[in-house]
Amino acid sequence: MKFIHTADWHLGKLVHGIYMTEEQRVVLEQFVQLVEEEKPDAVIIAGDLYDRSIPPTDAVDLLNDILFKINVELNTPIIAISGNHDSAERLSFGTSWYKHSHFYLKGKLTDDFSPIMLNDVHFHLVPYAEPGLVRQILQDESIHSHQDAMKSVIGKIESQMDQDSPNIFVGHAFVLGGKETESERTLSVGGSGCVTSDLFGPFNYAALGHLHSPDALRHDSVRYSGSLLKYSFSEAKQRKSVSIIHIDSKGDINIEERLLSPARDMREIEGRLEELLDPSFYQKQKIDDYLKVTLHDEGALIDPINKLRQIYPNVLHLERKIDVMDMKQKQVFQSIRSEKKSELELFESFYHEMTTLDFSEDKREIMESVISVVKGEEERK
Amino acid sequence: MKFIHTADWHLGKLVHGIYMTEEQRVVLEQFVQLVEEEKPDAVIIAGDLYDRSIPPTDAVDLLNDILFKINVELNTPIIAISGNHDSAERLSFGTSWYKHSHFYLKGKLTDDFSPIMLNDVHFHLVPYAEPGLVRQILQDESIHSHQDAMKSVIGKIESQMDQDSPNIFVGHAFVLGGKETESERTLSVGGSGCVTSDLFGPFNYAALGHLHSPDALRHDSVRYSGSLLKYSFSEAKQRKSVSIIHIDSKGDINIEERLLSPARDMREIEGRLEELLDPSFYQKQKIDDYLKVTLHDEGALIDPINKLRQIYPNVLHLERKIDVMDMKQKQVFQSIRSEKKSELELFESFYHEMTTLDFSEDKREIMESVISVVKGEEERK
Repeated sequence: MKFIHTADWHLGKLVHGIYMTEEQRVVLEQFVQLVEEEKPDAVIIAGDLYDRSIPPTDAVDLLNDILFKINVELNTPIIAISGNHDSAERLSFGTSWYKHSHFYLKGKLTDDFSPIMLNDVHFHLVPYAEPGLVRQILQDESIHSHQDAMKSVIGKIESQMDQDSPNIFVGHAFVLGGKETESERTLSVGGSGCVTSDLFGPFNYAALGHLHSPDALRHDSVRYSGSLLKYSFSEAKQRKSVSIIHIDSKGDINIEERLLSPARDMREIEGRLEELLDPSFYQKQKIDDYLKVTLHDEGALIDPINKLRQIYPNVLHLERKIDVMDMKQKQVFQSIRSEKKSELELFESFYHEMTTLDFSEDKREIMESVISVVKGEEERK
Repeated sequence: MKFIHTADWHLGKLVHGIYMTEEQRVVLEQFVQLVEEEKPDAVIIAGDLYDRSIPPTDAVDLLNDILFKINVELNTPIIAISGNHDSAERLSFGTSWYKHSHFYLKGKLTDDFSPIMLNDVHFHLVPYAEPGLVRQILQDESIHSHQDAMKSVIGKIESQMDQDSPNIFVGHAFVLGGKETESERTLSVGGSGCVTSDLFGPFNYAALGHLHSPDALRHDSVRYSGSLLKYSFSEAKQRKSVSIIHIDSKGDINIEERLLSPARDMREIEGRLEELLDPSFYQKQKIDDYLKVTLHDEGALIDPINKLRQIYPNVLHLERKIDVMDMKQKQVFQSIRSEKKSELELFESFYHEMTTLDFSEDKREIMESVISVVKGEEERK
């Protein structure tokens, strides 16, 4: 049997104020093409189909279109679960009807741990669930952490599992040792959201979602497929791919990766402003990529972001490089802070420091009113 | 052929701060029972399945449960469209999969005007759409009003309609002459949202949603089923029902109504506070109904709402009856307003008028801060 493992589509994602939906459509059309060529026996989507519980309507349209093409037009079974970004309830609407055409979408964890069987391979679907919910479903008061919860759920699955068939786990979790980036949402505030990889021992393969890099975890049979696209600059150097998993009747696994090519890459460039605006530099660049720009210039620059955007329309983030030379400036700034100036004076110094422009009267008025509103709100708290 | 016509379920509706979801579940379970007994050839839901574009998750669960029972468990075809309260896009997710089991949900108006055929009867599904959208879909710049839009859509349908079969229109619209209540949302702001009933001439029956009373329109073949429940006190005297429509091969129509019985009615009671709190009165009442209470007492009353709620837990709205006797009081109040007192003084007079209680120092402080916040916000606009 052959199946494709993907996860973390995050449809409807906003990156630095830009909706990624059209980028996502481009890559998903490639994915549909891959399914058409590879003719897998199933497509597995290991959670975070949407980026949030109430996605924008064009993301809803996109997911519907793509799943329809894969499942109905290409007649390919789909196995999908919800992740921590999805609304389990909203995603669950209609799932009973989808089964007709071998589209198995498990939005909510329930006490039914029976697997989906396709070509004699057993798929065990475990949508993302908070430990509190697992405690309630399993009626086990000893469950407090994600580790407790996953251990108990897998215990239940193992107790009724057919050991003679290949068994695949499909889940959404943060496995200990996995490398995080900035675009995954922490699973647990003030406590460990981790689970250990040894929990997945009973399975021939664990198809995971949550971490965005296919290299997040070094393990033969417990794997993240990685996300569809780069969703933060901390992922700029990651490759984005889906995994094609071959499994034989003995349960032995073979893994291939297929790269995805977005219309626009997400990457970082750096240098002095003048260099970056020089045709001899930018003519060698794919200028419409999503860029984080780090400027090496010292001193003031007038409106660098707009100058950059005239060449590179999709600059999403601009930084100035602070090296040892700048520490003096930083110290000046810190000494200003320690002088106990008023907020307005502090802002004026900051403004001048950053722009070298005059802090004009109209700007002063705007800041005064902003400061008074914020202060008023703080007092009311 | 026999089908049931219902509409305006408004799942997830809030009435005076109370979610109606549990009431809706009670009535929908009755509805499922009716479907089980009547065994209709189809159930038609003419829009406003949800009360808003993003319904609460328990309303999503409820709709999923009920439609699954009717469609899959009772093997009954469902024909449904979105209304002005639904999100066409969100409701459309998954519709392609539902058709397998004869669940035809049309969320978005498209240029495909082919009917659904069941038992040789043709059903023409027209989800609610703004005139601007219809203009775009039909590429007809002359469409401005709801009347223009409906006329054009029906023109399209008529041009390709099989005149030899019975034809049923399923739509969501405000038909001229229909009686409105407070809980339907006006379709058009600053213009007519109406369509005329003669437009539906080509059909043997028009199964409509939008107005909440089955008597909203007096017409033999253009009808509202009315809503599932009373959704405002202006509907307190309406009966709530679904319609069972029999149609023979010649297209002749016969209509029966079946009443729905909510766990709690929505109704009005009135009298003096003392009377309403008297066991000889309330022991004859169904005290947990949703109530609007109109008090006939003159002069001040201390905390009447809490006194009433000790007997009637679901008082949603309390009014004092102002008759000729009270006009003097009203005039006093108006003369206070014309004296140009400060907001705080005005409120103090009002408070005293309504409660006869002292306007204590802590209350004064709260009002002062409220007034200053509101004034601050007005100035910033």
